[in-house]
Amino acid sequence: MARLIEELKKLPGVGSKSAQRFAFHILRSSDGDAAALAEAVQNLKASLRLCSICNNVTDVDPCAYCASPTRNQRLVCVVEEPTSIAAVERTRGYQGVYHVLHGTLSPLHGVGPDQLRTGTLLARVERDEIDEVILATSPTLEGEATATWLAAALRGFSVRITRIATGVPAGSDIEYADEVSMSRAMEGRHDMRQ
Amino acid sequence: MARLIEELKKLPGVGSKSAQRFAFHILRSSDGDAAALAEAVQNLKASLRLCSICNNVTDVDPCAYCASPTRNQRLVCVVEEPTSIAAVERTRGYQGVYHVLHGTLSPLHGVGPDQLRTGTLLARVERDEIDEVILATSPTLEGEATATWLAAALRGFSVRITRIATGVPAGSDIEYADEVSMSRAMEGRHDMRQ
Repeated sequence: MARLIEELKKLPGVGSKSAQRFAFHILRSSDGDAAALAEAVQNLKASLRLCSICNNVTDVDPCAYCASPTRNQRLVCVVEEPTSIAAVERTRGYQGVYHVLHGTLSPLHGVGPDQLRTGTLLARVERDEIDEVILATSPTLEGEATATWLAAALRGFSVRITRIATGVPAGSDIEYADEVSMSRAMEGRHDMRQ
Repeated sequence: MARLIEELKKLPGVGSKSAQRFAFHILRSSDGDAAALAEAVQNLKASLRLCSICNNVTDVDPCAYCASPTRNQRLVCVVEEPTSIAAVERTRGYQGVYHVLHGTLSPLHGVGPDQLRTGTLLARVERDEIDEVILATSPTLEGEATATWLAAALRGFSVRITRIATGVPAGSDIEYADEVSMSRAMEGRHDMRQ
């Protein structure tokens, strides 16, 4: 019992009290339920791996995006983490595939291009027929540095390289926009004339 | 005393207690201070007016932006309120002039194009030599509607019409971006290749 509580406490946001409550709940639940939970935890690590094409977390290789016949395999959106894919998917407008870097460049923390999945991206662009690489790293310091590095690294290939727009967020007043976002909104203005 | 308290209570965020405190403070202050406050209040309304060119609040007509010889008078940034100008000025990158609409289109509240300073904008574009009109209304429902209406109204003139970029705000993670901002960030992506 004490060992289970110790293990449960390692979960994010779970303290001694919650861990104890979870442990007693498992104790009281049926043998089947306990076994199912144990098996699900076991299987997660055993069956989940990274997609050999895009590095997304998946249980089948290649992942659902890379294997999809309806997705545009010539359009690659580069993101920081597997969770970033959800942010792009929520728009319901993107029909291409992904490439997950698993981090951003951060020289201060010893993260260089070799610590990220950049090599497989360059190999992909060289090997496959790709029309456009969208650099969708976050508009943070590290995200911008990563995008700039990737744009330079991809310069040798005949592929369109684009960067997602930074600007005033939708639904907000420009009065409350920070200087950098407002500045980018002005620089990134687009023609409205048809 | 009661009349002063009643008048002070009309200020935003000032209730009976604050108004009383202000009134007693004025009572205790020197004759000079009280006279200076009264004069400053009087002068504000007497001296402030709207710029006859851009409708910005100003004490000289035309306003400092419209009269500036170093500003590009052929580049006009259209904003909702005089306070929006501060948001654009904070970027320190804009060197054109402004046009203040004093509101946004809002049919539900009975605000049509005639209730805004749209006529003077159209007259300005027709009369003066203007290269570009930047529609910098906020990316809200009303702001977008106003920009769309203005773009259509300006279509007849030989002027470039642009809209500020909407997207993920600078410094924030794309994981926390709302769907619309992320969607706009993807649609508004720009080439990074030189």
